[in-house]
Amino acid sequence: MTTHVRILGTGLIGTSLGIALSDTGFHVSLDDPSPTAVRLARDLGAGELAAAGAAPDVVVVAAPPDVVSGVIVEALRAWPRAVVTDVASVKESILREVLSAGVDASRYVGSHPMAGRERSGTAAARGDLFDGRAWVVVPHPASTAEATDRVSRLAIAVGSAVRVMPAHEHDEAVAAVSHVPQLVASIIAATLRELPESAVGLAGQGLRDVTRIAASDPRLWTQILAGNATAVRDVLREVLDQVGSVVDALDGLVDAGGEGSLGTLSRVLEAGNLGHARIPGKHGAPPAAYDVVSVVVPDEPGALARLLTDVGEAGINLEDLHLEHGLGQAVGIAEIAVVPASVEPLRDALELLGWRVHD
Amino acid sequence: MTTHVRILGTGLIGTSLGIALSDTGFHVSLDDPSPTAVRLARDLGAGELAAAGAAPDVVVVAAPPDVVSGVIVEALRAWPRAVVTDVASVKESILREVLSAGVDASRYVGSHPMAGRERSGTAAARGDLFDGRAWVVVPHPASTAEATDRVSRLAIAVGSAVRVMPAHEHDEAVAAVSHVPQLVASIIAATLRELPESAVGLAGQGLRDVTRIAASDPRLWTQILAGNATAVRDVLREVLDQVGSVVDALDGLVDAGGEGSLGTLSRVLEAGNLGHARIPGKHGAPPAAYDVVSVVVPDEPGALARLLTDVGEAGINLEDLHLEHGLGQAVGIAEIAVVPASVEPLRDALELLGWRVHD
Repeated sequence: MTTHVRILGTGLIGTSLGIALSDTGFHVSLDDPSPTAVRLARDLGAGELAAAGAAPDVVVVAAPPDVVSGVIVEALRAWPRAVVTDVASVKESILREVLSAGVDASRYVGSHPMAGRERSGTAAARGDLFDGRAWVVVPHPASTAEATDRVSRLAIAVGSAVRVMPAHEHDEAVAAVSHVPQLVASIIAATLRELPESAVGLAGQGLRDVTRIAASDPRLWTQILAGNATAVRDVLREVLDQVGSVVDALDGLVDAGGEGSLGTLSRVLEAGNLGHARIPGKHGAPPAAYDVVSVVVPDEPGALARLLTDVGEAGINLEDLHLEHGLGQAVGIAEIAVVPASVEPLRDALELLGWRVHD
Repeated sequence: MTTHVRILGTGLIGTSLGIALSDTGFHVSLDDPSPTAVRLARDLGAGELAAAGAAPDVVVVAAPPDVVSGVIVEALRAWPRAVVTDVASVKESILREVLSAGVDASRYVGSHPMAGRERSGTAAARGDLFDGRAWVVVPHPASTAEATDRVSRLAIAVGSAVRVMPAHEHDEAVAAVSHVPQLVASIIAATLRELPESAVGLAGQGLRDVTRIAASDPRLWTQILAGNATAVRDVLREVLDQVGSVVDALDGLVDAGGEGSLGTLSRVLEAGNLGHARIPGKHGAPPAAYDVVSVVVPDEPGALARLLTDVGEAGINLEDLHLEHGLGQAVGIAEIAVVPASVEPLRDALELLGWRVHD
């Protein structure tokens, strides 16, 4: 029998999920406080408009973070046999509110698809949003195995890789790998506001990378950070201590003899090396020691394509690619990451074809 | 007449510069405290071994930051007609030491090529290291116009875009756009050291971008940061204040009513939006409002090349490219930045060829 999924909230995530589930054979019905949003979602192929009487098997609450727990509780009451989940990026505060509402919460299992875009809203939806992303499934001690299973099957159906963990573990994890980096990227970007034009002009790829996510939506992120305040605060205090100790070390260098200051700087940088080495690479695999081959690419239509055609024809699998643009000149550097054994064959093949290659 | 450039220090920068200058017709002679390094540099085509008696026209000091001012002073004494420059990433502390040494400093002009690699040392040298990069030329009030001109011509000869600014302005600029981002990337990466494996496994592209430069060499960066302690401290204090005010706001949310806390979070995120918008794009141009077209790419040799061939054949100039890898699945998302007018033609062309496209 076809599973009937009701999606409550047809913004970016809800609509994208509707499209993805409809594409894979689920029966999807849609509801949203905005009649315009829900009709647009239907027109995008996310499902049919919700009709009274048709009870869903699974309800997905895709409302804004600050109202989501209320909607979950309503759904648990409205459909006494349905499994209910949500897709908010924080889990413990929502769970606490659901458990304290006096409903049967055994049918509730939280979830968090690690997918998003810099744009938001219904119109930005896309059916492959969850393709190849992690989807954290967050049961609580009273959740039934069936509820956990139903939610996991939705995630797998849309191409996600399921990770199961308890709410507090999820919230601590995303505080460290997502929420604090977001805040700090914003704070670093904010220091550029008053900088002279000539100084901003010296910005390179390092700064662009560190601050890329500072372009994110402040309204959404304020809700996310507020919803995970405890875990974010704990990690951010660690950051505050470290920044403070570096300021002290620099004070020591500027104002006093600087005894111990170099040691502090060096320890912070070394700790960064160690932490960085733990970040997984492609497809969640353990970080691999890829080597980078750098190739000079003229800035003209088709040049990069020609390069990558040549890479492909050499039979070499590109693990990662980064384009570095020079300042004031019409060339770029393509940094191609490959497994170490591919460096020499790749370099030889490209040089034979006239590319300027460095490794 | 051929200009004779003496390079003192044949690490990554000195050797790369020797190769680039030799390639464009300069006469380059090399010296380094390490006989092995200087011979390797010669073998890589960076120039000839320095011989007694042959006085250079220009001396480039490419020694480690903590010894560079002493070497500049020696060079000014040893060759009373030569222009002397250096390539260290901090400028004011070096200038102060040179000016206080009682030599004729009118022939000294500092410089800072904004180029580097994650690898260091002679063997990592490459002749195109300066291609398309900014090269800051840093005269002081007593520098002669001829000295500034000679140094600028070296930079232009190796393909760099020259920016002239005084030492304190340079140091304040790099503190904000390079040194503080480096420190903060290291501090964020350091928070990952003790994280459970399951948490690190949720890391996405945002975290990878924020922490990429945390892989840099701690020994070199300790010297750079110590050499620019005052300017780095000033920017880092700003960061410390902001991190502190966010911790206070989160404390307010966790422990008290949180009055004003959401406002603080929102203001920090909005300030990040504004600062981020000032970062120049490609080729030092003003930041352009590129639109991103996302295309699903199967993870197999040649797939990305095929995509970019198709982009090139559509006659569309790719402004930037970013590969986003999914977790646990064999697809990636290529995010292609193009000018807004190219979005529709690009999408149409690619869809016609069977690509799954989203914008």
